[in-house]
Amino acid sequence: MSKLTDVPKRILIGRALRSDKLGETLLPKRIALPVFASDPLSSVAYAPGEVLLVLSIAGVSAYHFSPWIAVAVVVLMFTVVASYRQNVHAYPSGGGDYEVATTNLGPKAGLTVASALLVDYVLTVAVSISSGVENLGSAVPFVVENKTLCAVGAIVLLTLMNLRGVKESGKLFAVPTYLFVAGVFLMILWGSFRGLVLGDAMHAPTSELQIKPEHQGLAGFALVFLLLRAFSSGCAALTGVEAISNGVPAFRKPKSKNAATTLALMGLLAVTMFCGIIGLALVTDVKMAENPAVDLLRDGVPVGAGYTQDPVIAQVAEAVFGHGSFLFMVLAAATALVLFLAANTAYNGFPLLGSILAQDRYLPRQLHTRGDRLAFSNGIVLLAGAAILLVWVYGADSTKLIQLYIVGVFVSFTLSQTGMVRHWNRLLTDERDQARRRHMIRSRAINAFGAFFCGVVLVIVLATKFTHGAWVALLGMVIFYGTMTAIRKHYDRVAAEIAADETPAEETARPSRVHAIVLVSKLHRPTLRALAYAQLIRADHLEALSISVDPDETRALREDWERRGINVPLKILDSPYREVTRPVIEYVKGLRRESPRDVVSVYIPEYVVGHWYEHLLHNQSALRLKGRLLFTPGVMVTSVPYQLQSSEAAKRRARRRADWSAPGSVRRGPVERRHKDPHRKEHNGRGRNGKG
Amino acid sequence: MSKLTDVPKRILIGRALRSDKLGETLLPKRIALPVFASDPLSSVAYAPGEVLLVLSIAGVSAYHFSPWIAVAVVVLMFTVVASYRQNVHAYPSGGGDYEVATTNLGPKAGLTVASALLVDYVLTVAVSISSGVENLGSAVPFVVENKTLCAVGAIVLLTLMNLRGVKESGKLFAVPTYLFVAGVFLMILWGSFRGLVLGDAMHAPTSELQIKPEHQGLAGFALVFLLLRAFSSGCAALTGVEAISNGVPAFRKPKSKNAATTLALMGLLAVTMFCGIIGLALVTDVKMAENPAVDLLRDGVPVGAGYTQDPVIAQVAEAVFGHGSFLFMVLAAATALVLFLAANTAYNGFPLLGSILAQDRYLPRQLHTRGDRLAFSNGIVLLAGAAILLVWVYGADSTKLIQLYIVGVFVSFTLSQTGMVRHWNRLLTDERDQARRRHMIRSRAINAFGAFFCGVVLVIVLATKFTHGAWVALLGMVIFYGTMTAIRKHYDRVAAEIAADETPAEETARPSRVHAIVLVSKLHRPTLRALAYAQLIRADHLEALSISVDPDETRALREDWERRGINVPLKILDSPYREVTRPVIEYVKGLRRESPRDVVSVYIPEYVVGHWYEHLLHNQSALRLKGRLLFTPGVMVTSVPYQLQSSEAAKRRARRRADWSAPGSVRRGPVERRHKDPHRKEHNGRGRNGKG
Repeated sequence: MSKLTDVPKRILIGRALRSDKLGETLLPKRIALPVFASDPLSSVAYAPGEVLLVLSIAGVSAYHFSPWIAVAVVVLMFTVVASYRQNVHAYPSGGGDYEVATTNLGPKAGLTVASALLVDYVLTVAVSISSGVENLGSAVPFVVENKTLCAVGAIVLLTLMNLRGVKESGKLFAVPTYLFVAGVFLMILWGSFRGLVLGDAMHAPTSELQIKPEHQGLAGFALVFLLLRAFSSGCAALTGVEAISNGVPAFRKPKSKNAATTLALMGLLAVTMFCGIIGLALVTDVKMAENPAVDLLRDGVPVGAGYTQDPVIAQVAEAVFGHGSFLFMVLAAATALVLFLAANTAYNGFPLLGSILAQDRYLPRQLHTRGDRLAFSNGIVLLAGAAILLVWVYGADSTKLIQLYIVGVFVSFTLSQTGMVRHWNRLLTDERDQARRRHMIRSRAINAFGAFFCGVVLVIVLATKFTHGAWVALLGMVIFYGTMTAIRKHYDRVAAEIAADETPAEETARPSRVHAIVLVSKLHRPTLRALAYAQLIRADHLEALSISVDPDETRALREDWERRGINVPLKILDSPYREVTRPVIEYVKGLRRESPRDVVSVYIPEYVVGHWYEHLLHNQSALRLKGRLLFTPGVMVTSVPYQLQSSEAAKRRARRRADWSAPGSVRRGPVERRHKDPHRKEHNGRGRNGKG
Repeated sequence: MSKLTDVPKRILIGRALRSDKLGETLLPKRIALPVFASDPLSSVAYAPGEVLLVLSIAGVSAYHFSPWIAVAVVVLMFTVVASYRQNVHAYPSGGGDYEVATTNLGPKAGLTVASALLVDYVLTVAVSISSGVENLGSAVPFVVENKTLCAVGAIVLLTLMNLRGVKESGKLFAVPTYLFVAGVFLMILWGSFRGLVLGDAMHAPTSELQIKPEHQGLAGFALVFLLLRAFSSGCAALTGVEAISNGVPAFRKPKSKNAATTLALMGLLAVTMFCGIIGLALVTDVKMAENPAVDLLRDGVPVGAGYTQDPVIAQVAEAVFGHGSFLFMVLAAATALVLFLAANTAYNGFPLLGSILAQDRYLPRQLHTRGDRLAFSNGIVLLAGAAILLVWVYGADSTKLIQLYIVGVFVSFTLSQTGMVRHWNRLLTDERDQARRRHMIRSRAINAFGAFFCGVVLVIVLATKFTHGAWVALLGMVIFYGTMTAIRKHYDRVAAEIAADETPAEETARPSRVHAIVLVSKLHRPTLRALAYAQLIRADHLEALSISVDPDETRALREDWERRGINVPLKILDSPYREVTRPVIEYVKGLRRESPRDVVSVYIPEYVVGHWYEHLLHNQSALRLKGRLLFTPGVMVTSVPYQLQSSEAAKRRARRRADWSAPGSVRRGPVERRHKDPHRKEHNGRGRNGKG
């Protein structure tokens, strides 16, 4: 991996980036395509199978509907791609669905989209990893025999890689993605050549099996419902299409045009691969069943629980390239790899969306730093935890997980496109130029159709999949929505509480004097430093305070104090229970009672150590005291640090941490580092998915 | 329970205690006995059974050795009681084994004793609860069928009670303990009466069973080894004897004499009960086997895995009082209750010993506060966790757990008694009064014999039980010892590092000026307060610093600043990554570079909230900034708190917490609260188990 990341240093984006090299870091289309398309392209690894699987409920004869379903998916894909090309042009700053919905439909719609996206990121990880494990399992049986374990292992591995902060390069994405695309196209071409020109009869490993239909001879409404369900499953091919619209700033100029072209290219590739695989599956007689153990029959006998159903793409590859052949192996590996890459995109998107939501105060404020390591870590640990839970509960079964997947995607598609219609409406009220009006009206028509179509799909998905698992995704969305609303309410309430009055005169009586207290336990360097600093402050009254928990130590302290001739009065309070906190608090409260307009300033010498376990051994009493003092009005608490030698270790760690660069930056576009027009910078900084 | 604790308010000890009522809170012997004896007396509930159980390995014929083993245990008990009566007289301040060993044999011996005691406390909980569950199970079969679950549940319940801080009273101990003692004595008397006077043939429920000896016809060394093993098990009756020697300050005057009398009384009761139960067990033909499922035969057939072996005391009670009779039920309940009380004593002892070890810097310093709630909580959570682990691993089987138990007890007995011999030796070198010398020489002889006898028992226990589980206890001791040594070393190293030089002139250049910085995000009340406080300080240079993460907000801040006419210069730093920490740190470092002798004082407005989840939403950036600033030399960090309304909730919690009184205080003796001669007070405060 280091080899891979060393070479393309030019296109790496990191903190070391100089603004004058900015141009070089932008993505050309040939790199942008794999960077953004690993997610949508990888979904052709599972979407075709899901279509066949649902159809098999009505028996193998229903497979002849699959081309029609493929056509419907293709039309939908073109619609969505056409719609998002409008987004790309309208929001060159990279308007994510969250932003589009918030700006045009209001914060509630925005928050709904955000909830849907968060759920989606979790499911992207769960589905992609599960499917990746299944694809790998078609070549390496061990993997599929220990599916859940391998899937959880893969998630943990990805999580650790992302937590460490792997530097990304376009090439890292390009190699497996192009390998995957090339493999699938080679398979389609070679398969067609063998079938049409050579006249070979290709047989998938499941071609000799029969399917026991769960419902024989479905017709009328039941059949329509089944076809709609199959269509819903096929829509899994559309997941991830919106990614490019978030990443416009990462493209070379002309950004919007290049992004739109890449989007179209991606749609075309996805559609061709999807249809090619379905076509080959029909030709090679692939059989897929929802419950393979029961519904797949070999000579009339169920294949039983020991049977593992390989993904369609693997079965087709086996039929075309031959079982265990080199090309079969390569394609299986590339498929698994591109699926893992797809999962990885969620690791970038989730914390980034989190930081945008934090800016809008829907999430804890400290997450708002872009590429901040801690915020990033919290985000990916949450993401990984949720994905592992889902993988565990659903036994890493991609078919079951996909039932949950598509709801969120179409919630955000629908709201985003509806928002775009509003966007054009708003622009049209002001626009007088007829050519541009026509253009806008055309765009609005495309987005309106997109919104309508996606809305219809959403209803279909909800209707056909609700009981199959979509409710879980909806529940997840409701939980995110509720939590974020509560957090926002809290912040709003606090903001109202702390808002300053306009007339400062009405403020409560201003404090008049400072009574400074230095806490002393022994006379060592930290204490001496605290005393020296406190003396600099020129408070109206300064004294040292010691809590006597041991008479011998107290006597020693007093003697030491006098011997050194420290010209600060030393006050000693007795504490029979060896408590420290309570006597100090009571003393401070007493001072405040005597002169309520005084401010008490408490100086606490603090040890700075380098390891967490040393923290357990130091400062705990100081921390607790500080915690209690803060509740007392009219007090300020000053930590005077003393750096122990071991603190060097922490400094070294901090330096290493500074070299860390957040994964996913390659997709996000560059940010200039410093000292330029703050406006442009800020715009760029929040550009990717923010308010633009 | 509230009824029970309301009535004897006079003998309650708590924070509300006034020093003039001190006398009334001291324990009369009739209350002191149950308070301190629940642990040693309760062990007669399992010790006799363990003796029979080991003997059964050689077949039921070996049972005739049991009276001899009982005699050996009685002799040992008298020796130990006589020895500790010397401790009580020599250390009227309540010299615990840790103190006696540390003072007379050095810190390593002391630490060994401390490790042994810590392990012992854990095992007291595990063994007493397991045995309690078994005894309760003799009356309520459900309990013994779900032994591990019930034992863990009981530990969790005890833990919660102790964490909440149940106020204790002597009566709380007195009722079950006296009930238990009365029940056992009634059983012994009524059993003797029925057997000797009425000539009834009493039959234990296991009287008709046969024992399949694991080793038929043992003789010579093997037999001796088995008898020694049985004796080791019987020594379980001695656990807890040392408790009174720790609690002398809790007795009424003359403290030492009363404590010694109570100790003798306790020994007498324990011995009588132990022998009575063994005698009745022989008369009623109780059969105990190590593996009852295999080695207990009914008409030649093993009883099988479904069989549960009731404790000896329950079997005897059944034989004497009749199965399911009222008295049988009462005794079973009293036995279980007194065992739970015994477990509870460990909940008091463990954190208290922890606080003494913390004073000697073997444990984190913040644990040193006596009866401090947080220290206490940490201690009991650790104790409960370890006990639950043991109960879980050993399936709440008291027989298996007892194998681990006795090592620690005899390590501390032996070292404590050896220490006492040294103590008398030291006193004898100075003492000239012949009468007192004679007295001391007598005491020394008793302690020497005690040390020798306990040492022999320790060797026997180690030899006969090492592979049966004693190694686990030793491992636990080694872990405690190693951890505490490492902590002490760390503290010593730090103390050396921060020790102040004797000549202050040699200190590094004194700081000359203060550059104060107030961190500002918006102009709200917390910021205004921080500005007002910082202005009071009269620093040499004062400025406000804001990090620009959003140009609109920054502009608004600047306008607000001017409109309010705040006479502090406002400096704004750009941060394209929306970072806060890094720009501030770099700015501060820059200031320090420019004038290295300046001290930078950073004022951070901080929100004070009432709930932990609000903490997640506020101050996190401030906390992280503070954490980083402390690593920068020449900086002090001041928190200026602003109390939000919700902080009232925390204040209420703190007030409730102040009313809390640490469990176990009744055993520890009273502490005067305040404003007296600090020496006497301190003495009393550390008295119970401390350095006296």
